[in-house]
Amino acid sequence: MSKKYVYLFREGKASMRDLLGGKGANLAEMTNIGLPVPSGFTITTEACNEYYTTGGQFPEGLWDQIKPALGNVEESTGKTFGNPEDPLLVSVRSGAKFSMPGMMDTILNLGLNDQTVRGLAHSTQNDRFAYDSYRRFIQMFGNVVLEIEHHFFEAILDEAKSKQAVTYDSELSTDSLKWVVEEYKKLIQKETGKPFPQEPIQQLEQAVLAVFRSWNNDRAIVYRKINAIPDDIGTAVNVQSMVFGNMGNDSGTGVAFTRSPSTGEKALFGEYLMNAQGEDVVAGIRTPQPIKSLEQENKAIYDQFVDIASRLENHYRDMQDIEFTIEKGRLFFLQTRNGKRTAPAAIRVAVELCHEGLITKEEAITRIEPGQLDQLLHRRMDANAKLEVLAKGLPASPGAASGKIVFDADDAERLGHNGEKVILLRTETTPDDIHGILAAQGILTSRGGMTSHAAVVARHMGKPAVCGCEALKIDYTEHNVSINGVVYPEGTELSIDGATGRVIKGAVPMIDPELSEEFKELLTWADEIRKLRVLANADNPKDAQKARDFGAQGIGLCRTEHMFMDPARIPIVQEMILSQTLEERELALSKLLPMQEDDFYGILKAMTGLPVIIRLLDPPLHEFLPNVEDLVVEITKMKVTGANPEELKEKEALLRKVRALAELNPMLGHRGCRLGVTFPEIYAMQARAIFQASARLVKEGFEIHPEVMIPLVIHVKELEMLRKLTEDTAQAVMKEQGVSFKYKVGTMIEVPRAALTADEIGKVADFFSFGTNDLTQTTLGFSRDDAEGKFLPAYLDKKVLAQNPFAVLDRDGVGKLMKMGVKLGREVNPELEVGICGEHGGEPSSIEFCHLLGLNYVSCSPFRVPLARLAAAQAKVNNQD
Amino acid sequence: MSKKYVYLFREGKASMRDLLGGKGANLAEMTNIGLPVPSGFTITTEACNEYYTTGGQFPEGLWDQIKPALGNVEESTGKTFGNPEDPLLVSVRSGAKFSMPGMMDTILNLGLNDQTVRGLAHSTQNDRFAYDSYRRFIQMFGNVVLEIEHHFFEAILDEAKSKQAVTYDSELSTDSLKWVVEEYKKLIQKETGKPFPQEPIQQLEQAVLAVFRSWNNDRAIVYRKINAIPDDIGTAVNVQSMVFGNMGNDSGTGVAFTRSPSTGEKALFGEYLMNAQGEDVVAGIRTPQPIKSLEQENKAIYDQFVDIASRLENHYRDMQDIEFTIEKGRLFFLQTRNGKRTAPAAIRVAVELCHEGLITKEEAITRIEPGQLDQLLHRRMDANAKLEVLAKGLPASPGAASGKIVFDADDAERLGHNGEKVILLRTETTPDDIHGILAAQGILTSRGGMTSHAAVVARHMGKPAVCGCEALKIDYTEHNVSINGVVYPEGTELSIDGATGRVIKGAVPMIDPELSEEFKELLTWADEIRKLRVLANADNPKDAQKARDFGAQGIGLCRTEHMFMDPARIPIVQEMILSQTLEERELALSKLLPMQEDDFYGILKAMTGLPVIIRLLDPPLHEFLPNVEDLVVEITKMKVTGANPEELKEKEALLRKVRALAELNPMLGHRGCRLGVTFPEIYAMQARAIFQASARLVKEGFEIHPEVMIPLVIHVKELEMLRKLTEDTAQAVMKEQGVSFKYKVGTMIEVPRAALTADEIGKVADFFSFGTNDLTQTTLGFSRDDAEGKFLPAYLDKKVLAQNPFAVLDRDGVGKLMKMGVKLGREVNPELEVGICGEHGGEPSSIEFCHLLGLNYVSCSPFRVPLARLAAAQAKVNNQD
Repeated sequence: MSKKYVYLFREGKASMRDLLGGKGANLAEMTNIGLPVPSGFTITTEACNEYYTTGGQFPEGLWDQIKPALGNVEESTGKTFGNPEDPLLVSVRSGAKFSMPGMMDTILNLGLNDQTVRGLAHSTQNDRFAYDSYRRFIQMFGNVVLEIEHHFFEAILDEAKSKQAVTYDSELSTDSLKWVVEEYKKLIQKETGKPFPQEPIQQLEQAVLAVFRSWNNDRAIVYRKINAIPDDIGTAVNVQSMVFGNMGNDSGTGVAFTRSPSTGEKALFGEYLMNAQGEDVVAGIRTPQPIKSLEQENKAIYDQFVDIASRLENHYRDMQDIEFTIEKGRLFFLQTRNGKRTAPAAIRVAVELCHEGLITKEEAITRIEPGQLDQLLHRRMDANAKLEVLAKGLPASPGAASGKIVFDADDAERLGHNGEKVILLRTETTPDDIHGILAAQGILTSRGGMTSHAAVVARHMGKPAVCGCEALKIDYTEHNVSINGVVYPEGTELSIDGATGRVIKGAVPMIDPELSEEFKELLTWADEIRKLRVLANADNPKDAQKARDFGAQGIGLCRTEHMFMDPARIPIVQEMILSQTLEERELALSKLLPMQEDDFYGILKAMTGLPVIIRLLDPPLHEFLPNVEDLVVEITKMKVTGANPEELKEKEALLRKVRALAELNPMLGHRGCRLGVTFPEIYAMQARAIFQASARLVKEGFEIHPEVMIPLVIHVKELEMLRKLTEDTAQAVMKEQGVSFKYKVGTMIEVPRAALTADEIGKVADFFSFGTNDLTQTTLGFSRDDAEGKFLPAYLDKKVLAQNPFAVLDRDGVGKLMKMGVKLGREVNPELEVGICGEHGGEPSSIEFCHLLGLNYVSCSPFRVPLARLAAAQAKVNNQD
Repeated sequence: MSKKYVYLFREGKASMRDLLGGKGANLAEMTNIGLPVPSGFTITTEACNEYYTTGGQFPEGLWDQIKPALGNVEESTGKTFGNPEDPLLVSVRSGAKFSMPGMMDTILNLGLNDQTVRGLAHSTQNDRFAYDSYRRFIQMFGNVVLEIEHHFFEAILDEAKSKQAVTYDSELSTDSLKWVVEEYKKLIQKETGKPFPQEPIQQLEQAVLAVFRSWNNDRAIVYRKINAIPDDIGTAVNVQSMVFGNMGNDSGTGVAFTRSPSTGEKALFGEYLMNAQGEDVVAGIRTPQPIKSLEQENKAIYDQFVDIASRLENHYRDMQDIEFTIEKGRLFFLQTRNGKRTAPAAIRVAVELCHEGLITKEEAITRIEPGQLDQLLHRRMDANAKLEVLAKGLPASPGAASGKIVFDADDAERLGHNGEKVILLRTETTPDDIHGILAAQGILTSRGGMTSHAAVVARHMGKPAVCGCEALKIDYTEHNVSINGVVYPEGTELSIDGATGRVIKGAVPMIDPELSEEFKELLTWADEIRKLRVLANADNPKDAQKARDFGAQGIGLCRTEHMFMDPARIPIVQEMILSQTLEERELALSKLLPMQEDDFYGILKAMTGLPVIIRLLDPPLHEFLPNVEDLVVEITKMKVTGANPEELKEKEALLRKVRALAELNPMLGHRGCRLGVTFPEIYAMQARAIFQASARLVKEGFEIHPEVMIPLVIHVKELEMLRKLTEDTAQAVMKEQGVSFKYKVGTMIEVPRAALTADEIGKVADFFSFGTNDLTQTTLGFSRDDAEGKFLPAYLDKKVLAQNPFAVLDRDGVGKLMKMGVKLGREVNPELEVGICGEHGGEPSSIEFCHLLGLNYVSCSPFRVPLARLAAAQAKVNNQD
């Protein structure tokens, strides 16, 4: 007895997404809450997986389950599959657990053949409709199931139009369509060596297999990779009786969101086309009507739609994305799902649903995908900039972008990988363009509406998009676009504003983002919920202020080396490094001291009342020196051309010094606290600068919380030695200045040995800060600079690693060390504060891991602070005990 | 009530070394077994430590304990301290837990003053002896306690000799000596502003303090560093009634070993001088008589000595190093201790003591310090070489050395640090020369015997030494040496043979060592005892054979990259690396295949019957390419001089390719199995070469055990992928060749993540091999190349690290990861074989750690195999549960 592979819609429910896919589960749910849903059944994802594990066999026992289900559909529709009088027609659609819009295949009107087409014509009293449906079915079936390229069918259609001397498909006569049908069948015979299958049962079997196959088409694979959807969960197949939106002017089809997917505004938002099939709306070929127009067109249907849409939203407790069809004045619901939305819409919807009492604050928090917030936290067009607006389209996906225009997804990808900023400009986009959209800064199309492919995908990816900008005339052959008579060749720089639909000449100045009121409210809720504190990485007062504005609760990492890189200081820094004696070095350091003091004064002042963790000098000293290769070239030239021997000698001496400091593996070399151990005078200067700045601020009445962080510790003795040096300096400064202040001394945990011996190190540290960039490098033996360019792409492609470990924290390796570090450190020092300041501190999954480890804080770049606040709250909500 | 700081000799015993020091404990033990030991007492090491913790105070309550102890000595000698008639005189000597010969201070004849000297003269009926003793005492006290430089005293002595017109000290008359005493006292008044202390009690107090101080003199600190003796254990002070070897020709003093410290031969081995104090023998100023001569001189004393020496050896169950004095025909034992010995002697003594039934095999094993074995396992002079022997001295420390002669310890150190091989040539050495001896290849002295400072220190350090070579006339001013009339300036190359005493002109060819019969026997015992198997690292059949001869039980690491470096192959290797396509690369690989097959054929054949673990390619590919800087120089020259544009273009193209492969941190870059993941064809070629060689050998009837090792694994998926590739290749080769053989596939554990996820990796590995060189680099974040040149010396100096972690395994950090790796791996795979193949596999303390971890084997360089066999057995013996 085989598994249950087939579920009638009424046998399923919303929670069965794993088995029935998102679409199937929702169709079942809608059916069960009494909505008008065309009857049908779902073939489970398990059947798809069985198909793959058996190497492409039709799963055993599946057919025996499909037959009675089909019988059930026949019964409820009163039609019979293959009945030449009044045939049952079905759609066959994919539907995975996670929505993958347009990625997999769909076949409509299945069940038509040379006999049943006549029955359809008779029962609908519409010959043209019947033959148009038949030719559409053959075309879809030929393309999807039999894998005959699209353009063969288009050529026949074009020939028919040219014969009849008309422009549009819809103008083709019934006779023309009959001719097309015959030509299509000949094409199929020619391409496959077999006739078009007339037997509906055979059509169904082949269609189901084709949907299974489409799970692994190239588009779907890319989409899953981008969206981190597992490859092994498979798709379900939904077989559903057809309803027709193209049965005349009392028929139609549309899609609608219960709230705006762009802004989140509570209002029906959608489009429909009368006398059209569903794919006409989604594909963006005809520009549809806004949903509001339906009220004029047919108030009864509109009111019914509004009522059911509202019921659906209440039932699912989220904004819904609904597909509907009107067949001869009767409304059917074909699909509903939680609607994809922009980040601002996600926030507004979540906050308003909470205000409406539909969801709790905790739920509102988890409704936002933190990765999406990026788009809110980056720059937008400066409202005060003078803009030369060339055209206006639909504001399809918010955000602004500038870049060189390209007309092809491959070009976009190629240039994008070379670091160029590009705008992908297309008449419309298709799922084949995904890689180009991914690589582009923004998308601009001349056709298609707010729910067109380009718009949906762009919103989901957080890319700015302007769609349906009809002023654009694209010439793919000449690689240019003409806008109001002016021709702009490929490579011209344009900007788009996805919030207003404007297309602007040239690059446009951008300004820093601000948080919307809803976002601020949501973050307040997040703050109430989260356990992790959120600090920011900032090296100067400006960034510190920005971090504070975004809600940072302190500075978790103030790097001091950036201060050394200031062009005015680099000569003094070089003087210090090249010193031959301690005296020389101390002289150079004494010049740096007042500069560093001012740095710290500014940053401590900006963060008054909050902790500021300052890391002492970390990078290898030779980073501040001239490049060896440049010197070698210079010297070789001097030698060949016979330069002044004195100058040559000097240059050679410099080269020797630089070379002496050069390292084979600087990442594992003379850096971090190793500098403090070998040149204590450098750390002493930095500590003095911190404490002198502190003393000044205390005298001026500011509340300050300086914390000194020692980098790259591997042994407790390093920390003991450098802690003592810091404390001695603090005592000396307090005595000199006659003030007193509190401070902490802690350490980075960024080398495996530090984590492994945290029970020693923890005894002399006030805090630990996991430096997960370095810790990832040493734990995996990956030099980030080398890995990302050389072998990491292959590791991700071949799925040796599921994620880039520098982006998403490697829980099994690095995470295990962190866990040990936290446990061992707290065992010997229960008061130990533990945080993270690597880039992972701003990445949601890594933040969740930090929450699970029981860290006290995460620290990330200022622009990621809101994201981290939200992710920290989500971590709490999603991991309640 | 203060601690017990003072122990009479009869209150102590041998096991109280921590408290009483080695010398004190032995004096106590000798006293208690009834030997003639001059009476005395020991001030404990705790008193010394108390002195240091209180910042140099005379420990409270110590004096109250010294007084009664002194009273006890007075009682047993019948003499009184400070008695002007018949004064008690004492020696005050240092004595730490571990012997530090000549490093700390000693004062003899304490108790003499202007009154008691007359009493001594009277009681001994020897004015000259009394005043000579007094002047020696003042000189020693002045130098050691009052810190007046030696040469001031020498100048006065020289003046006296010149006044009296004699050459030697011993020719000075009583009057001259009285004059010297007066001048010494004036010198002391002048230098210290105070008179020489006449009060014996005061003398004693100051002498005790001086011994405490001498624990931290520069010589002692250096010695402890070299010998890894802790700095905080302090020295004891032994106060003992004086006996005099210089009371005339019926008096004498000497040192003797119960067996030869050079060869281990069972025969008394030592020297004595009549009418001399002990330091005359040790200092090497007069060349003493061999101990055997004492038999003629005084058979009764000799027989008594032989008898007691034998009793001491039986009592201590080890070869003894004995100091004795004959005072007016009466024998006293001043010291006994386990004698220092060369490695061959250590082995012979241990084996013979075991044969004699004095010690067990387990004890014999632990009597050898594995570090010492180095000298046995390195090269010695080729007996067939034609040698120009210039002179002959005493064979003071075995082994042979060649080098440039230098006449000063500082020069030896300076040149030695620059990598020069030097022979330190001195009249005699003193403790101040330690740093020079350490830096030299060998030691050559013109004076002093087999127990002179140079000889003792050289034997202990395992350095070759020839002593007492009186043919040498050294001119320190002109920096040359004349031998039989020929002058050799500084920098002349000479050789010495410490086994025969020969001094040879020029450098001498050396040959590989062989194991002595005793050593072989000892190693058989070690093999019976040890749990760890010992394998060797070898990359070619010659090394493999050597390893086998030394007892290796297989090859634990056969690196394949050395094979790539062969000059005949490097062009093909470069061709492979620079290939633009898979086809090009496979073509180059197909040329390498037969070469690699031959490599593996040879090594598998040499190790027939034993496992051979072959590691697939590990280093970054750019290591096989030309150097970027060289190319840059070449190109710059071509540009400046206007070379052929075609050639320039080609060079520039090469540079681009080399640069593209260059890495910022090659240690953490594209290497190890990352090469196998990105270029599976390389690993496939290597696997094929291994299996084709295996197939050939099987057909030829050899028993082979190939094991394929995948380097640098961080994730189980790498190993899964490459294991499959290996297995597929093996299957293919077996099928092609029609033979079958067994093989294993395992992995290096050399990156922290591998150890942390060993519970995953262990599932698909037949064996783990800890690559502790790399594991140390990543666990500590230390690039070995950079660390050892830049900051590691400072880390060792400042005692941040106790040991170089690349030499001695870091148990707390790296070791913790190893422990996890073993535990996790065996949990999922109880059959897992675990070993180590880093350099630590040949280091005794690291081998012990491997034993404690329960590893199956260690693998080390062929020359270290005997050491590893022994160390593994010691680890077992020393860690019995």
